[in-house]
Amino acid sequence: MELVGEFFGTAVLILLGDGVVAGVLLEKSKAKDGGWITITTAWALAVCFGVLVAKALGSPGAHLNPAVTLSVCIQSGDYSNFIPYSLAQIGGGALGAFLVYLHYLPHWKETNDPGKILAVFSTEPAIKDTVSNMISEGFGTFLLILGIHAIFSPLNGGASGIVGAGFVGLLVWAIGLSMGGTTGYAINPARDLGPRIIHSLIPIPNKGNSGWKYAWLPVFIPLAGAGLAAVVIKYLV
Amino acid sequence: MELVGEFFGTAVLILLGDGVVAGVLLEKSKAKDGGWITITTAWALAVCFGVLVAKALGSPGAHLNPAVTLSVCIQSGDYSNFIPYSLAQIGGGALGAFLVYLHYLPHWKETNDPGKILAVFSTEPAIKDTVSNMISEGFGTFLLILGIHAIFSPLNGGASGIVGAGFVGLLVWAIGLSMGGTTGYAINPARDLGPRIIHSLIPIPNKGNSGWKYAWLPVFIPLAGAGLAAVVIKYLV
Amino acid sequence: MELVGEFFGTAVLILLGDGVVAGVLLEKSKAKDGGWITITTAWALAVCFGVLVAKALGSPGAHLNPAVTLSVCIQSGDYSNFIPYSLAQIGGGALGAFLVYLHYLPHWKETNDPGKILAVFSTEPAIKDTVSNMISEGFGTFLLILGIHAIFSPLNGGASGIVGAGFVGLLVWAIGLSMGGTTGYAINPARDLGPRIIHSLIPIPNKGNSGWKYAWLPVFIPLAGAGLAAVVIKYLV
Amino acid sequence: MELVGEFFGTAVLILLGDGVVAGVLLEKSKAKDGGWITITTAWALAVCFGVLVAKALGSPGAHLNPAVTLSVCIQSGDYSNFIPYSLAQIGGGALGAFLVYLHYLPHWKETNDPGKILAVFSTEPAIKDTVSNMISEGFGTFLLILGIHAIFSPLNGGASGIVGAGFVGLLVWAIGLSMGGTTGYAINPARDLGPRIIHSLIPIPNKGNSGWKYAWLPVFIPLAGAGLAAVVIKYLV
Repeated sequence: MELVGEFFGTAVLILLGDGVVAGVLLEKSKAKDGGWITITTAWALAVCFGVLVAKALGSPGAHLNPAVTLSVCIQSGDYSNFIPYSLAQIGGGALGAFLVYLHYLPHWKETNDPGKILAVFSTEPAIKDTVSNMISEGFGTFLLILGIHAIFSPLNGGASGIVGAGFVGLLVWAIGLSMGGTTGYAINPARDLGPRIIHSLIPIPNKGNSGWKYAWLPVFIPLAGAGLAAVVIKYLV
Repeated sequence: MELVGEFFGTAVLILLGDGVVAGVLLEKSKAKDGGWITITTAWALAVCFGVLVAKALGSPGAHLNPAVTLSVCIQSGDYSNFIPYSLAQIGGGALGAFLVYLHYLPHWKETNDPGKILAVFSTEPAIKDTVSNMISEGFGTFLLILGIHAIFSPLNGGASGIVGAGFVGLLVWAIGLSMGGTTGYAINPARDLGPRIIHSLIPIPNKGNSGWKYAWLPVFIPLAGAGLAAVVIKYLV
Repeated sequence: MELVGEFFGTAVLILLGDGVVAGVLLEKSKAKDGGWITITTAWALAVCFGVLVAKALGSPGAHLNPAVTLSVCIQSGDYSNFIPYSLAQIGGGALGAFLVYLHYLPHWKETNDPGKILAVFSTEPAIKDTVSNMISEGFGTFLLILGIHAIFSPLNGGASGIVGAGFVGLLVWAIGLSMGGTTGYAINPARDLGPRIIHSLIPIPNKGNSGWKYAWLPVFIPLAGAGLAAVVIKYLV
Repeated sequence: MELVGEFFGTAVLILLGDGVVAGVLLEKSKAKDGGWITITTAWALAVCFGVLVAKALGSPGAHLNPAVTLSVCIQSGDYSNFIPYSLAQIGGGALGAFLVYLHYLPHWKETNDPGKILAVFSTEPAIKDTVSNMISEGFGTFLLILGIHAIFSPLNGGASGIVGAGFVGLLVWAIGLSMGGTTGYAINPARDLGPRIIHSLIPIPNKGNSGWKYAWLPVFIPLAGAGLAAVVIKYLV
């Protein structure tokens, strides 16, 4: 049941998250040019409802993100969940991206910019610079794990249920608004890889290449940033 | 009393929801060109306060939406409420739209675009494409029902009273921001049909036709999407 | 102590509320052209923190608005608070507007439009039309009172303390976003009259007339709308 | 442990707060031109998560601001924390600003305006006018302390844990939206001084002077405003 929750929770995350990028970037959408506040607000809500759906379907942890799962594994010392959770999350991310493709079906052929079409699915850096992009994704994911730790810390009273999900959404709102300007805050391997697979497989009008040269970075760097955060929290906090 | 709550709760939903579209689209309004974030934020709050008013007036379920009522009927197996609730909701939606007409009274004759005037009342797709529009309204309503299930699921702690109403508002914010760009997220037969009846009946300056050719879609597809979600939740979750 | 709370709570309401209008309209402000979402979000927060300050200073009702006080008087049948509360609220509104004048001191002489300067202080309709403007202010205030009733209704679980203040802020966000486009949602005699007195008394560079011809409407119509709402709630709900 | 919490909590505050200014002002950022609503929303969230991190790391007061620490010292009569807390907060602010420098590394050389580059780090007034700027920073910080008092007042039910942190974020949202247009709402000596030190020390492409002539004002005036507020609350409320 936990894998079902991770799968569909991540699908909801990406349906809503990639969905707002489609709404803001694709031609003739009513949300066209909604701006950064529209994109980041919707991604925050995407996380909140992805978490709530995942928990309602049986995954009490509601990670939706291999980097979060890795940080939990490091803190608990039990790595058995890492591979199955990650596969469910990547699969859910792929499903969510495919649903976005269907939802905005007549808008693809109206849109001629392959960069915008790829941006609906996966992240690309504003300025390609490998070391800088690694720093951005690493910092963002480190703060994600530290923030989740803070939200659920007994020293903050222990957020429960729906309020905790809401604050995780607020955390992603903060990271997106303040740190997303550089690489688009993937901070989640499943959020980036699942949709990129769909982009490469389905015949979208006007699509270009799927950016595979960059694809390793938003997969491995979030894992590294989350791993480092988990080690710091486990041994220093 | 439940029908009174559904009637006036839906009226508040549409007064605030259609109201923000009037504010953003009608000429000389102080909210003119407020953009997608303005429209979607107000619709989220419209749902929250529609729900709170409906409950305060005696409808503890506060559906405000025949698609929500249908999903509750399917899950309970008791369909006796469907027709009376739906009529109260459509009537309340019509009242709300008439109040929007009165509230923005001097702004109609300043506005020459019949498309904008109809958009204040009812939804129109950004790109007319029947199958795609069915997918958009179906997906949106499916997610509405799944999200409501998640918000009130005991696995999320069971949201109560005012917090639950707030999260339903957040859910509609998410759906609007991320999925509204295509068909304008009716996801509610009463939200679309009640105002369309008012648009067709009252003598608004510069109004065009009431879009009756499209009107069946935001009535029947939300019911189908909600019905499917209810069946999935009842038998699979 | 209650009058102290009403006085300073209303001062905070107007300092933050008129303050955002100054920030968005006055030349050279960093918030210049922030748009309707900026204005309405800040007014919502202004209400929330006006209420919290009023309660912390000893006014548990935290009305900040003669129309709210009147509705409470009608529901309780005791009118003894109406005059002293209203005077404290109007005085607090005047203090708040004077603080906005001081806060934005060097920006007034940079701004040449007397209409914008008056708009920082008090409301003016987008289209002057007495009957329509009465409808707008009446509807807005009716919904304010109905919404407050709903928020604190035992049927919604009875919002307490800080959460209740937050939801009253959300209610004013909703009214502003959806109904403010016509008359600028005074919905509060003290919010409009107190600052208008300050506008007429202090020597602001480039100011024009203080709009006294219109001033009766946002004083008396909110009282009428609130009174009607209170009667409806008392005898029908 | 309290100093550790103050140090890293302030670092998170500035990473997210200065981060959004970088995102909105630096060339080629995805958040470019996000506007006042983007900046103020992110600063509100920066405060919320700075507080949560500070508390999770062992500082239950989570001041993050020498002006807040001073107001607590005045109310308690014990000034022993003032110097160590302030140094930890300024150091944390410097660390946060350095992380923003790294996070947006390739964007500095794309940006030619030294004023924008300084604005990422520290505040500058929209109109330089010493007395007016003192009024703005003084009023803003006075309201910050009064608002915090109100949020945690037993007369408002006593906000606990995560909800209290959220409302402090909302308070800073309000102050920023409504009062930030003049001096950019430093209202915190550590928020301004820590990043200004980093700006003056590190070799940022296209940077100009670090605005040291103005730097005393956002250090001493917030302390004065907070001190006055603390005296008023202690002896009059």
